Amino acid sequence: MKTDLETFFKPKSVAVVGASKNPTKIGHAALKNILISDYECKLYPVNPNEDEILGLKCYKKITDIPGSLDLVLISIPAPLVNPIVEDCVKKNVKWAIIISSGFSEIGNHEQEEQIKKIIEGTNLRILGPNTMGYKNASDNLDVSFVFGMPRKGNVAVVSQSGALGMGMIYLANNEFVGLSKIIGVGNKMDIDDHDLINYFSTDQDTKVIGLYVEGIRNGRAFMDSIKKCKKPVLIVKSGQSAAGARATASHTGSMAGSDQIYGAAIKQAGGIRCRDIVELFDMARALAGQPAAQGNRIGIITNGGGLGIMLTDACEANGLTIPKLSPNTYKKMEKILPPVIKPNNPVDLVADAGFFRYWSATRILLEDPNIDGIIVASVHAGYARPQEYTGAILKMVHQQKLHHEYKKPILGCWVGGKEFEDLVLDLKAVGVPIYPSSWRCARAMFSLYQDGERLKHEKQRS
Amino acid sequence: MKTDLETFFKPKSVAVVGASKNPTKIGHAALKNILISDYECKLYPVNPNEDEILGLKCYKKITDIPGSLDLVLISIPAPLVNPIVEDCVKKNVKWAIIISSGFSEIGNHEQEEQIKKIIEGTNLRILGPNTMGYKNASDNLDVSFVFGMPRKGNVAVVSQSGALGMGMIYLANNEFVGLSKIIGVGNKMDIDDHDLINYFSTDQDTKVIGLYVEGIRNGRAFMDSIKKCKKPVLIVKSGQSAAGARATASHTGSMAGSDQIYGAAIKQAGGIRCRDIVELFDMARALAGQPAAQGNRIGIITNGGGLGIMLTDACEANGLTIPKLSPNTYKKMEKILPPVIKPNNPVDLVADAGFFRYWSATRILLEDPNIDGIIVASVHAGYARPQEYTGAILKMVHQQKLHHEYKKPILGCWVGGKEFEDLVLDLKAVGVPIYPSSWRCARAMFSLYQDGERLKHEKQRS
Repeated sequence: MKTDLETFFKPKSVAVVGASKNPTKIGHAALKNILISDYECKLYPVNPNEDEILGLKCYKKITDIPGSLDLVLISIPAPLVNPIVEDCVKKNVKWAIIISSGFSEIGNHEQEEQIKKIIEGTNLRILGPNTMGYKNASDNLDVSFVFGMPRKGNVAVVSQSGALGMGMIYLANNEFVGLSKIIGVGNKMDIDDHDLINYFSTDQDTKVIGLYVEGIRNGRAFMDSIKKCKKPVLIVKSGQSAAGARATASHTGSMAGSDQIYGAAIKQAGGIRCRDIVELFDMARALAGQPAAQGNRIGIITNGGGLGIMLTDACEANGLTIPKLSPNTYKKMEKILPPVIKPNNPVDLVADAGFFRYWSATRILLEDPNIDGIIVASVHAGYARPQEYTGAILKMVHQQKLHHEYKKPILGCWVGGKEFEDLVLDLKAVGVPIYPSSWRCARAMFSLYQDGERLKHEKQRS
Repeated sequence: MKTDLETFFKPKSVAVVGASKNPTKIGHAALKNILISDYECKLYPVNPNEDEILGLKCYKKITDIPGSLDLVLISIPAPLVNPIVEDCVKKNVKWAIIISSGFSEIGNHEQEEQIKKIIEGTNLRILGPNTMGYKNASDNLDVSFVFGMPRKGNVAVVSQSGALGMGMIYLANNEFVGLSKIIGVGNKMDIDDHDLINYFSTDQDTKVIGLYVEGIRNGRAFMDSIKKCKKPVLIVKSGQSAAGARATASHTGSMAGSDQIYGAAIKQAGGIRCRDIVELFDMARALAGQPAAQGNRIGIITNGGGLGIMLTDACEANGLTIPKLSPNTYKKMEKILPPVIKPNNPVDLVADAGFFRYWSATRILLEDPNIDGIIVASVHAGYARPQEYTGAILKMVHQQKLHHEYKKPILGCWVGGKEFEDLVLDLKAVGVPIYPSSWRCARAMFSLYQDGERLKHEKQRS
């Protein structure tokens, strides 16, 4: 079944079944979120007991609404849902979102099967049940019952858990990672992860796709969608352990499946598996803000030997290499370092390194054809000047963006306190990826290398 | 060689060789740091060209100083160091710290051998060379040339890298982790990691010991000191990879050795190996603030199913188990949950959980003899109330401290944004361990379980 989710994410007309005047009800919050969105569409509350809600004319049934309907939100108790779905089919509605819970996640598989039969062979497709809905930040449309919009950006997030989806919005905002869309897929009765991956593969507002997945319903379609996807796909697949799988079953009613098989399949399809959602956003930030690495040869610049070694270990543990400097690069580096210091990779700029050494060393590695990606690190030790360090990264990243000279990723890594943290916020605010841990930084660089490999395979295929 | 470092960390008289009036010189900073410490001791600048520095009478040579000398700091160029060490021996000095660099870290092994010969059979023992010195926060004494004191607490840190040591002070301050002492061991020519582990094992101001190690000089003594240590020992051993080992050699002149052998030996000795310094402080905070776990059976409380599953996966990946609830606990849990919700482990308190559910669920798991440790998690989703969540943890942790009823560790885990982050600072400020990542939280719980095992072995041996 082919799906063009364009009218799903940008509907011209929306009805909310179960709309309510009571502000503690989900049907109230869902209606209000659409109403207050900075987005133009027709909006129809549906509730047999009301004439007007939030200043909008209220309808008894969907079939009473004049004109066509792109999207229907259903927020009524599970036992009342089936007739509404039938009404949607009658009205030739394209999309429905069943917010209501009480389906397969509590063992009620039967009703999901009934609804599937109702929509079989029709034009209606359904998100959910048991979902928060979606937030389309690209177009300022909030079709969910939870409050708060993500910062606008180019990471699309698909979450099987609504609560975690919401948490991810806050997390992303806090970390200055912008989102294009975020969707709760809930029980995935009909619209599934692969439908969304396929859509985001060509969505011009999306550059990176991140998924939180508990169970996979259609393994082949899932892997195929990742394989065909023109963008990096990051996946947190939970329910890895036996106890985790048990917990998964009672959360969204899905089977977690064999973890190792999924792990291998995701890797083969070209997806990147993340340890948790923090790692997902670590990688998303790098992929959204930096070019892919054309290879795995990483240059490390630091003002503290210890941090350089930890970064080297973390890179090598993730399939990256830290090659020796070429004779040409060695010569250039020697000129910018204090007299007794010998250049190496990691390049130790020593403790008192300021703007000039950081900026020059980064440029030298950018010019080196044997280096595919650069990590610029700083320890806030006695003689360090954090502002000169962050200033040098900012300047280099901006220059690279302006001139498109080298197309190599630059990541930051820092160890320090409050003063440093405030400066790091400035970098995050303009999209420069910087991490407070050598492991997290190396994992982010790994994702850029993986994306370079993915792009190579894509090129070979075309 | 037995070492009681008591007079090293609490000297009654200190001389600084290479003391200077020039504020850009290390010899100036070192003298000033001791002078401005809130600590009482005799302090003697040594410089043949000055009569007075920073208001203190200056001496031409160590041997001119009246009375006995506990500690001598040496901050002069490497080629001038040996005669000063000879003077220290003549003066019957107990401890010296050679701050100066230019020794084995740049291939100058010969001079270190010469110095070892000078002190052979004498009472003099030496820290360094190539070290920042130490900061004794327990007693407010700063014997280093770098600026800034750690927050006072009970984590002792030993760092082979001075810069990283400094960075760790800032990191620890930022994360509200208090330190007792922090020492740069530099090239470890004489005083070595095991001397410090042995000392901290009985230091009443220290509860947890953390080491950043690049090379191990005396493997047997190192492992023995960990095995005999009465406190948890956390170790970041860098130079794991081939490239990392290469970088190590040029940083502190030490051989990284076979990584796997060290890993296995550390584990066997009862030490805990950390991935990086962020993990070291994650674990240190848990070990400093919470009792050890008596077993590996963990109870998880959450307001979002997804986060519960991720925590379950992360716990099981670290050798912890998430057992099913006992019938008794199940019954108690059922009473505090909304009617349709069935208790499980992870206990899902569902999205709108407030103070009461969090507080009651934590208490129920504390009372359950089948649970050894508790993770209390919150996703900042639509209906979450972060302040009630953090309030419940605070209350429970305080009650436990007051009554010593259960002696089980409680850790927090959160996913959210700015509002949540501010509340988390309140928890950190009073020493409650809470983590913004399921993996980091599970690793911290793993360290508490490991410490429980270590305590059992200690008990068996005694």
